[in-house]
Amino acid sequence: MNHPAPPTALRRAMPPELLSSLREYFGDRLSTTQAMREHHGRDESSYDPMLPDAVVFAHSSAEVAKAVALCNHYHFPVIAYGTGTSLEGHILALQGGLSIDVSQMNQVVALNAEDLTITVQPGVTRKQLNLEIKDTGLFFPIDPGADASIGGMAATRASGTNAVRYGTMRENVLGLTVVTAQGKIIKTGTRAKKSSAGYDLTRLFVGSEGTLGIITEITLKIYPQPEAISAAVCSFTTIADAVDTVIQAIQIGVPLARVEFVDENGVRALNRHDKLTLPEKPLLLFEFHGSEQGVKEQAELVQQIADEHGAIGFEWATRPEDRSRLWQARHNAYFALLQLRPGSRAISTDCCVPISRLTECLLETKADCDRENLIYGIVGHVGDGNFHVQMLVDPTDPTDVARAESVNERMVHRAIAMDGTCTGEHGIGLHKLDFLVHEAGEEAVDLMRTIKHALDPNNIFNPGKVIRW
Amino acid sequence: MNHPAPPTALRRAMPPELLSSLREYFGDRLSTTQAMREHHGRDESSYDPMLPDAVVFAHSSAEVAKAVALCNHYHFPVIAYGTGTSLEGHILALQGGLSIDVSQMNQVVALNAEDLTITVQPGVTRKQLNLEIKDTGLFFPIDPGADASIGGMAATRASGTNAVRYGTMRENVLGLTVVTAQGKIIKTGTRAKKSSAGYDLTRLFVGSEGTLGIITEITLKIYPQPEAISAAVCSFTTIADAVDTVIQAIQIGVPLARVEFVDENGVRALNRHDKLTLPEKPLLLFEFHGSEQGVKEQAELVQQIADEHGAIGFEWATRPEDRSRLWQARHNAYFALLQLRPGSRAISTDCCVPISRLTECLLETKADCDRENLIYGIVGHVGDGNFHVQMLVDPTDPTDVARAESVNERMVHRAIAMDGTCTGEHGIGLHKLDFLVHEAGEEAVDLMRTIKHALDPNNIFNPGKVIRW
Repeated sequence: MNHPAPPTALRRAMPPELLSSLREYFGDRLSTTQAMREHHGRDESSYDPMLPDAVVFAHSSAEVAKAVALCNHYHFPVIAYGTGTSLEGHILALQGGLSIDVSQMNQVVALNAEDLTITVQPGVTRKQLNLEIKDTGLFFPIDPGADASIGGMAATRASGTNAVRYGTMRENVLGLTVVTAQGKIIKTGTRAKKSSAGYDLTRLFVGSEGTLGIITEITLKIYPQPEAISAAVCSFTTIADAVDTVIQAIQIGVPLARVEFVDENGVRALNRHDKLTLPEKPLLLFEFHGSEQGVKEQAELVQQIADEHGAIGFEWATRPEDRSRLWQARHNAYFALLQLRPGSRAISTDCCVPISRLTECLLETKADCDRENLIYGIVGHVGDGNFHVQMLVDPTDPTDVARAESVNERMVHRAIAMDGTCTGEHGIGLHKLDFLVHEAGEEAVDLMRTIKHALDPNNIFNPGKVIRW
Repeated sequence: MNHPAPPTALRRAMPPELLSSLREYFGDRLSTTQAMREHHGRDESSYDPMLPDAVVFAHSSAEVAKAVALCNHYHFPVIAYGTGTSLEGHILALQGGLSIDVSQMNQVVALNAEDLTITVQPGVTRKQLNLEIKDTGLFFPIDPGADASIGGMAATRASGTNAVRYGTMRENVLGLTVVTAQGKIIKTGTRAKKSSAGYDLTRLFVGSEGTLGIITEITLKIYPQPEAISAAVCSFTTIADAVDTVIQAIQIGVPLARVEFVDENGVRALNRHDKLTLPEKPLLLFEFHGSEQGVKEQAELVQQIADEHGAIGFEWATRPEDRSRLWQARHNAYFALLQLRPGSRAISTDCCVPISRLTECLLETKADCDRENLIYGIVGHVGDGNFHVQMLVDPTDPTDVARAESVNERMVHRAIAMDGTCTGEHGIGLHKLDFLVHEAGEEAVDLMRTIKHALDPNNIFNPGKVIRW
């Protein structure tokens, strides 16, 4: 919508020999239909689609390697595709290309319950993964909004509501199988819990957004399901009170499993959408994991701290159905907010700042949104200092979109000035190339570019994303 | 001792112009005395010293950058030096070079207690760091055996006894300031707790052992001191019983802060050295962090599991002095073991395997040590699957040394076959170049080499370490 279509000049023509070689190899698992190309040419960002030239459905690392080697030979772009749920234009075929869809590579390769590790193919989604291991008493905590693929989550260094306790994909990927630009299949780690053996290739590929290689297998940490879980919800008069409650709880070492913030606009939307009667004020949702006694202790401590910050209506939810209702509401926030402005589309921001600066960042950002008369709501993984302003724009009105983008830009600069980042969990994609330069500096981005040039000399992997060539 | 001196052919001659430029810039902070070069040409490995040509004491990132830029101009090696406590020949001047000593860069740059972050210069040691923040109620958990510098710990991806709960340097470095081969000063991260902004340069430099750049500032996560700490100790009839106790405790989610294994040889050494009367059987030492109630609950659970595995003499130590006595004994293990064979030197191994394979790996390794009639003891960070066989050898007897090295080699191959790593926390250095190839595979090491060539085209940074040029 708001973003111009890519200049056609950027597109590289797909050599007919490449297409026929791929067709020979993949048979009817290669498609060039308009419908298939359209499906693989969009994500959940507000970008207009940019279609790949062809799509193949790979079934193994060897097949991915074959496709990559062919494309590398012809210097033709390759874009990995999982569920298409990324948010910053990650999978759009800016220069044309072959979309390698790994969604049918959706098997668990090895479950090692004693070691708390699991190895999966990249097309396994996070919900599928948890279903597969439900009976083991283990779970995988990372939960971005969408039911994303594990490959995509690794590629974007995703996180979600449990990161405050369990970390992000950065901390939870033990090792990867990766196809390199030369069509080699390498392993980047072992199942050892820690290692000092050489450069950390695992972390180099995690978050590289398909620009350095294609992830074809992922070994993850998994965790024992907690003996007890409880949740709580409370409201505050001010954002500062809410944030200070979280800072204090973390500072005294309460191992919060989740702590989510919703601003008064967000609460209003949730009330309407889920028929709730929450006070329309800054809200915190907590979840505690531990032993029966431990969970009780944590919740009591947090309640005490919240009370000292003028908490309103501290409510516990220990019954699973009450917990589900609350967290379901939080998960519905995106759709609930959309309904504040029927017909609108959402632009979702993704700053993350040191938590000591979070109140200031939130207040200045809200003031800016209000000044611009935006319709918006804010949700945040407040324990990590990460929040999303969901700005509801009329996709047919360029002025409206431009106002939202200008608020986002000022917010990113604000967050970076506070020693924060332009993206806590969504990634750079197409949208944040300049923000990355602003954040990391020209010279650090040059170093990233040096790595990109060295590993992918023909610029075949998802060209135009993360950094400019 | 056991390692041949480096072939002189490898040494690059130090250009007189470089030496005079450095002297001009650093004045009397440049030294070429034999004593100074010897001090900077050895670590705590069993390698014979390999001396750098000169040593400079840098006081700032800008000074490091100046020295590096000069050396890069002359294609002359640069080796960063912190405390010289690495274990695999990391800082030895295989090709000659300039040793940049950063031990005088030992200031805390910024403490952000609310955010649980601290930024320090690389010469700050881990004990100094904890002294500096003692009054804040916070602490830094990573504790390799030596009082290493934080820069060196980042460079080797160090860990220690708390890693089972708090992770390693991989998880605890938020961002770095790094001097590149071109003499640029870059920042690799912000103080945001998480980020999806571009390639993970932080993790690329953590563990790169000075071969990709020189770390001149480190931002770390720090943690609230637990409200309560308790420790426990117990013995087992078999190693399997000890390891299974730990596996079960982890599997039901007991958040063990530390769990250390000592084999019967190690216990015998501790008994002699510290005048203790521990049963001379496989031993576990536990530490629990949490609330008063939580710590009690954890310890009771663990005691119950240990009892089911035939634990002998489960003893609690809640009083600080009792805890200190126990952990002091553990920390003395290295010296205690040395006294099992007066006049000997220790060769310390560093495998790490998935914990489900740990018993098997330990038993086969012990059998091998016994077959070879070695004098040895084993200590292990058993919750991580990481253990050290300390083999006591006569440094003047090549046969003795060769036997120890052959046991180590077989153990590394065993660990790798079990999907483990040749080094859990010590690093590759000079000693494990071939083991890294065996572990990661030629093609993954080629990829590391591609990165090395791209970032350090003149091979100035710690040449000959981690990977062969």
